[in-house]
Amino acid sequence: MKIAVDAMGGDHAPKEIVLGAMKVIKEFPSVTIQLFGDEEKIRPFLTNGQNVEIIHTTEMILSTDEPVRAVRRKKEASMVLMAQSVKDGHADACVSAGNTGALMAAGLFVVGRIKGIERPALAPTLPTMDGKGFVMLDLGANADAKPEHLLQYAVMGSIYAEKVRGTAQPTVGLLNIGTEEKKGNELTKETYDLLKEADLNFIGNVESRDLLNGVADVVVTDGFTGNMVLKSIEGTAQALFGILKETFTSSLKAKIAAGLVQNDLRALKSKMDYTEYGGAALFGLSAPVIKAHGSSNANAIYNAIKQANSMAEQRVATMIVDALNKEQQ
Amino acid sequence: MKIAVDAMGGDHAPKEIVLGAMKVIKEFPSVTIQLFGDEEKIRPFLTNGQNVEIIHTTEMILSTDEPVRAVRRKKEASMVLMAQSVKDGHADACVSAGNTGALMAAGLFVVGRIKGIERPALAPTLPTMDGKGFVMLDLGANADAKPEHLLQYAVMGSIYAEKVRGTAQPTVGLLNIGTEEKKGNELTKETYDLLKEADLNFIGNVESRDLLNGVADVVVTDGFTGNMVLKSIEGTAQALFGILKETFTSSLKAKIAAGLVQNDLRALKSKMDYTEYGGAALFGLSAPVIKAHGSSNANAIYNAIKQANSMAEQRVATMIVDALNKEQQ
Repeated sequence: MKIAVDAMGGDHAPKEIVLGAMKVIKEFPSVTIQLFGDEEKIRPFLTNGQNVEIIHTTEMILSTDEPVRAVRRKKEASMVLMAQSVKDGHADACVSAGNTGALMAAGLFVVGRIKGIERPALAPTLPTMDGKGFVMLDLGANADAKPEHLLQYAVMGSIYAEKVRGTAQPTVGLLNIGTEEKKGNELTKETYDLLKEADLNFIGNVESRDLLNGVADVVVTDGFTGNMVLKSIEGTAQALFGILKETFTSSLKAKIAAGLVQNDLRALKSKMDYTEYGGAALFGLSAPVIKAHGSSNANAIYNAIKQANSMAEQRVATMIVDALNKEQQ
Repeated sequence: MKIAVDAMGGDHAPKEIVLGAMKVIKEFPSVTIQLFGDEEKIRPFLTNGQNVEIIHTTEMILSTDEPVRAVRRKKEASMVLMAQSVKDGHADACVSAGNTGALMAAGLFVVGRIKGIERPALAPTLPTMDGKGFVMLDLGANADAKPEHLLQYAVMGSIYAEKVRGTAQPTVGLLNIGTEEKKGNELTKETYDLLKEADLNFIGNVESRDLLNGVADVVVTDGFTGNMVLKSIEGTAQALFGILKETFTSSLKAKIAAGLVQNDLRALKSKMDYTEYGGAALFGLSAPVIKAHGSSNANAIYNAIKQANSMAEQRVATMIVDALNKEQQ
């Protein structure tokens, strides 16, 4: 497999991006990586000359750029060339830690949609307390969604959970404000009926308060709600960790206590660590596109490339096409 | 002021309800309380015979009852009689810790709406890290909302924040998935334009991750999103406290550490404690209706009754009517 990587996207680019890629090459001799970006800035971090290609470009999309315009105008940007490489069949999948909106636009306009999928969905794997994690989509690719979109999300998420995450017959839950069948807004009520009829392991409505307990393997929701819930969880965890830190430095006694449980607290924080789960996949595109977190370190990039590789190997896009055809019959 | 209280609603009724009421009577000689429920079960907890009336009834609405049907059929239920007392002008406001849906139905069908308000909104005061708290609405009275509803929520929330919570010129934020003006779904984009034009201290979009930091005094959103965010915050806090507890009992070393910071951790947990903030107000009804948390103890009920009393004293319902008339001109 050949994976195209945007070496210039993310807070710690190109260093952490290149180091993550090097780690993949070292461990997986069957993977070749194309690095898109400024060759002069990339080269110092190359530890291996094998199975790696550098496609030089100095143009790049900034995190402050207006996404759609940037993708349309900056035709030589590392992210755009990366997407083009997949489109042209030179690479099997791609990974970027850059501007999320721009990557979604590059996926949509350059890589291209699967026929029958109106819009791709952003689908990260989120942590659970038992360390298993779950796939949630859409996390913000489309603020307004229709019931048919949510059905497609469920189909795509199930294929991913089964083929890439290795969960047999993954459970699918509909994110809602109550578990009873008739709960929710118009969108969730109509979606419930569609999911019930579909060829899925649908377990009904799930509530946001149960997400971290791993209530379902795949959780579907519209992009507005998904993004809102993700940020609520992040914000609450951050606020509590912040106060915890304050508590443990507030007095000598507290500092001694902190010393005693330092390792345990670190383990607690790492349970909420997204980097172990790779990046967010953009589902519904004709080839795998992975959005790594903007603050990704080498380990996060390593996991995101592995994820892209696995999606390409498992032919997730082809399976989605087949499933959609079946669903429409 | 006279406050009607549903003595039979909530997990710890009637004991904690009656004890909370007794505490109010002791501290506020100007308040009279009507207790609705089973006299035989209420009487053992009466510590004061003054300024308290018991209206005996054995019928009650259960937490498992279908809300609207229960209110329509159980005409002698403690909650329904409580609402009727407000409707008939025998009480100025009412408080229940019972079935949320039933209380909303009782508010709507028995107490009645303010003319011009299509549907009431559920508005709790939520905790912030600085202990100030903020008012958020709607938290689930209406799953589907229109932009005009959110404008009404903003007006009602502002009046409450100013008159009852004592915040001069309260800031109003629109809950959204980004802070930029053009972000969001159709509902938030249209609402943004309405709020910008209204006579409010509107500060624009706010994100769910910043809620606990007190990003605005009043946060408006549709009931589906509000309920979703509230449960996300609750679920995350619970999961983290759960793991924290596990961490602190995992070894002898950890137990010693826990002993050292016991008081600090208790203070941390109490920062997230809703009971200090009273109950959730139902805005848009012709008299104050307060929903206390189902698991309310005497202190939570005490605060909820104080809150109902304050809303009645400040004539919040009348001020909402005036503000709506002004907004429509």
